[in-house]
Amino acid sequence: MSQQDAYTAAGVDLAAGNRVTQLMKTAVHSTFGPEVLSGVGSFGGLFDISSAKGMAQPVLVASTDGVGTKTMVAAAMNHWDTIGHDIVNHCIDDILVQGAKPLFFLDYVASSKLNPEQIAEVVGGIATACREAGIALLGGETAEMPGVYQTGELDLVGTVVGLVDRAKIIDGTRIAAGDMILGLPSSGLHTNGFTLARNALQDLDWTAVQPQLNDTIGNTLLTPHRSYLADVQALQAAGVDIRGLAHITGGGLIDNPPRIFPAGLGATIKRNSWPVPPIFDIIQQQGQISDAEMAHVFNLGLGMLVIVPRAQVDLALTAVPQAHLVGEIVANIEGVIFE
Amino acid sequence: MSQQDAYTAAGVDLAAGNRVTQLMKTAVHSTFGPEVLSGVGSFGGLFDISSAKGMAQPVLVASTDGVGTKTMVAAAMNHWDTIGHDIVNHCIDDILVQGAKPLFFLDYVASSKLNPEQIAEVVGGIATACREAGIALLGGETAEMPGVYQTGELDLVGTVVGLVDRAKIIDGTRIAAGDMILGLPSSGLHTNGFTLARNALQDLDWTAVQPQLNDTIGNTLLTPHRSYLADVQALQAAGVDIRGLAHITGGGLIDNPPRIFPAGLGATIKRNSWPVPPIFDIIQQQGQISDAEMAHVFNLGLGMLVIVPRAQVDLALTAVPQAHLVGEIVANIEGVIFE
Repeated sequence: MSQQDAYTAAGVDLAAGNRVTQLMKTAVHSTFGPEVLSGVGSFGGLFDISSAKGMAQPVLVASTDGVGTKTMVAAAMNHWDTIGHDIVNHCIDDILVQGAKPLFFLDYVASSKLNPEQIAEVVGGIATACREAGIALLGGETAEMPGVYQTGELDLVGTVVGLVDRAKIIDGTRIAAGDMILGLPSSGLHTNGFTLARNALQDLDWTAVQPQLNDTIGNTLLTPHRSYLADVQALQAAGVDIRGLAHITGGGLIDNPPRIFPAGLGATIKRNSWPVPPIFDIIQQQGQISDAEMAHVFNLGLGMLVIVPRAQVDLALTAVPQAHLVGEIVANIEGVIFE
Repeated sequence: MSQQDAYTAAGVDLAAGNRVTQLMKTAVHSTFGPEVLSGVGSFGGLFDISSAKGMAQPVLVASTDGVGTKTMVAAAMNHWDTIGHDIVNHCIDDILVQGAKPLFFLDYVASSKLNPEQIAEVVGGIATACREAGIALLGGETAEMPGVYQTGELDLVGTVVGLVDRAKIIDGTRIAAGDMILGLPSSGLHTNGFTLARNALQDLDWTAVQPQLNDTIGNTLLTPHRSYLADVQALQAAGVDIRGLAHITGGGLIDNPPRIFPAGLGATIKRNSWPVPPIFDIIQQQGQISDAEMAHVFNLGLGMLVIVPRAQVDLALTAVPQAHLVGEIVANIEGVIFE
């Protein structure tokens, strides 16, 4: 019996794991800047943060997340290169809201059976998104777990680490009544609400072009989560005083904005002040979902809210012309009220 | 229809998610030292690294990993508080081998259906292990993914970030022929080889006390991965010149040590120079597994190898008396040869 035989018979293929590593190496290395001190195969990834020495009080900001059952859409469409963009951009947006500059990313991909080409496609997407954001894909893990995952499905988890000088942390504490709320357009569902969306859309043909979408439901659902790194950098470069950033993830437009509001302040958001992408209308109609639940689960076309002083609205809209003016901060209301 | 009804009907229970968060809060906060600037509920966790400013060239070391199908043993035994220790200690050991001091940890727990009490038990174990290592549980994510995971199973992923001054990185480059190899005892399988082990042991009763183990197979398999943080610190405090550290994970005693050997150097390891825990004998007999495959999959009782100069063996063994002298570095052989 060769060395690997009993393990292979038990459902784990170490050779496939090694093939994945080979396929990923080039993609991973393409994300390495001069700060990365290690290569693929080290136990941990090494990232030089000498840049932190110039800061008054350097603070790391870190976040771990998944893409939820968007993985099941990838599996249903057998289309694996977009969800890597999703997890990278989702994680970047999660630390961007605190003012952090993302430094590096680590991924975890697991399934019941490793398909090297499929995993390489996922990790290729991750590497491309990392390159686009100028961050390193510093490490990762692929795991074969027969018996834990359903056949043909996988899970995808990412962790991002960023850096910010303490005085520049964005935490919402300076938000004041009268501040205005800009909404940055999402590309669609991003990475939230997929269990509900898949359920609502289950009777439709995901591979047929829908006139409202000018595309298929499958492609529309798989559109990657948008990174707002360039938008936030444009606002900062223009000198806009960003008082708060809310990433619209699980909990939708209802639960996320209040996470950064000081006590006693809430928000009014004007319906119809931005275009809701048609995929949300299709989901709502097919699933017979209330307006309230739609706003509680989905981003409805706004992936990031930016709170700025009223006097800087024009400056901000010049820096990010694709943004919509969607609401304002109001005293003595709780949470978000739609008008 | 209430806000959550359609989502709940689709298999996602946001209220259960919120209950998990409440149950975990106290455990998570108990790991926070003065460096942690944020609480549970922020988008990303904030960790002050002003300590890096005193270093000549501060380097972050990061690693992401899972515990493999050890989760299935936890599920089979319905015993959820140990795998949290596994993932934390596994991750710590992965960056410890490069000389890094671990700073903080992030976790990801996912299953087809959130069981708040079960997840709280897992995260409670994570928090305890973080406290024991003096690191912060800075963030995490719980995900409910019906259709991706098998009913009753879960996956557990961890990421650790540590810090080291560049000149103090341990990378094996100074390893020389004649250096000696110490082995630090493992507590059992740690987190590797569980698919093979479960397969080999499937016909035995995991809840009956086995005379060889003086315990049940279930309890023995669930014994947490050992952290070698205190051992490495003891060696460093004693002034031992640690030339290399190899964490014995997937790939066992065969594949892991060569990851740190300079070109042209290999190792001889003496069989019978350390006690192999009896669980490995049971697995080998039940699964009819060759010696070669056992060494290629399992740690066989040695969770970490430490390479030290021959002249410092006594000094090292005084600092970590539980270590075994198991082998030496030899020129002109490739990889690890058992004698």
